[in-house]
Amino acid sequence: MISNKNIAVILLSGGMDSAVCLAKSIEMGYEPAALHLNYGQRTQQKELEAFNLLCSHYNVRNRLIVDVSFLSQIGGSSLTDSTIEISPSMLGSGKIPNTYVPFRNANILAIATSWAEVIDAKAIFIGAMEQDSSGYPDCRKSFFTAFQSTINLGTKPETDIKIITPIIHDSKSDIIRYGINNSVPFKFTWSCYKESEFACGKCESCLLRLKGFRDAGAVDPIKYLS
Amino acid sequence: MISNKNIAVILLSGGMDSAVCLAKSIEMGYEPAALHLNYGQRTQQKELEAFNLLCSHYNVRNRLIVDVSFLSQIGGSSLTDSTIEISPSMLGSGKIPNTYVPFRNANILAIATSWAEVIDAKAIFIGAMEQDSSGYPDCRKSFFTAFQSTINLGTKPETDIKIITPIIHDSKSDIIRYGINNSVPFKFTWSCYKESEFACGKCESCLLRLKGFRDAGAVDPIKYLS
Repeated sequence: MISNKNIAVILLSGGMDSAVCLAKSIEMGYEPAALHLNYGQRTQQKELEAFNLLCSHYNVRNRLIVDVSFLSQIGGSSLTDSTIEISPSMLGSGKIPNTYVPFRNANILAIATSWAEVIDAKAIFIGAMEQDSSGYPDCRKSFFTAFQSTINLGTKPETDIKIITPIIHDSKSDIIRYGINNSVPFKFTWSCYKESEFACGKCESCLLRLKGFRDAGAVDPIKYLS
Repeated sequence: MISNKNIAVILLSGGMDSAVCLAKSIEMGYEPAALHLNYGQRTQQKELEAFNLLCSHYNVRNRLIVDVSFLSQIGGSSLTDSTIEISPSMLGSGKIPNTYVPFRNANILAIATSWAEVIDAKAIFIGAMEQDSSGYPDCRKSFFTAFQSTINLGTKPETDIKIITPIIHDSKSDIIRYGINNSVPFKFTWSCYKESEFACGKCESCLLRLKGFRDAGAVDPIKYLS
């Protein structure tokens, strides 16, 4: 059976935000095609596992896993360069932490757009959150608006792809509330910056996640080391 | 000896246009850092060879070769998908030929920007030519202007990278005249879409090159099959 739904490319890292994006794309009536990037991040295996579990849960057949290890070749971030120690949380300091991967979202969106143009997708879902983005410049609404212009100008005239940032103005607790109300399987997601059987509970990303669950008055279904 | 020149990332495919960009970046006083992309194109080996010969000729020490074979994984172009026959030249037809790699220049510029941000480069040189670009949407000045905005918005506040398109308004014969007057070693460059010892002389890219040399009243120093 061929679906007559519009296709949307979903950037599915395997984290909670991307899981919520996937759920929202289905709620909005799209046929999701899931894109996962391996960029030599420390947690590559855990994230890929989460990606596949989420795809299977939502019955997503069109999956693309892309190697972007040039991001580690280029370096400049503690997430892709193991010689740089992950900086402790700088939440609220106004500084950009060294987990920032230079211009990552532009690379991600460029790949998503190439794929979207080939499979005739009408949308790209990306789970960026301006508020909880640790100050990363490429997570702001204004960045996505600018990238939308480059898509409009840089693709074929008949191509019509819209960047959708469904959680851009949400907080972590907002997306957790949405997920709980919509049975998003957070138990399959991975957020920790460190690769280990259980999440560390101490890195920037774990702290944001745990705070989100506390603020939402809910309990995180994954296990922590501490 | 540490140079006090500003660094510029040069997108150096190994073709004539990129060779002229490299020469122009030096003329403009930059210290070039050369970036080459392997994207599973048919002519990967010939282009890499040209890249290294050009770098050695101009004494470029900072070189980065990046694998972007996701462009062939994604497909959609006769340049990256060997099951698609390269379409004959459509020059002047107003149609986009199937050698168009969807949104390629956005991917290329995103990578160049990531590297530029890490090595503190102040410019990115890309040898796009609006006039001779076969109608590729991502070769137009308006596309580069839009991408400049995404760089400004998507990088750190202290990052200051300018996209320079030094030959955007030139014709092939213009850049050939410039190259001849400035001793650019065109003998090292590769333009043909087919991988072979000698250029085919028949594909879109060879036809543009040969026409350029004719228009410039010069002789192409490379060898052709026909």
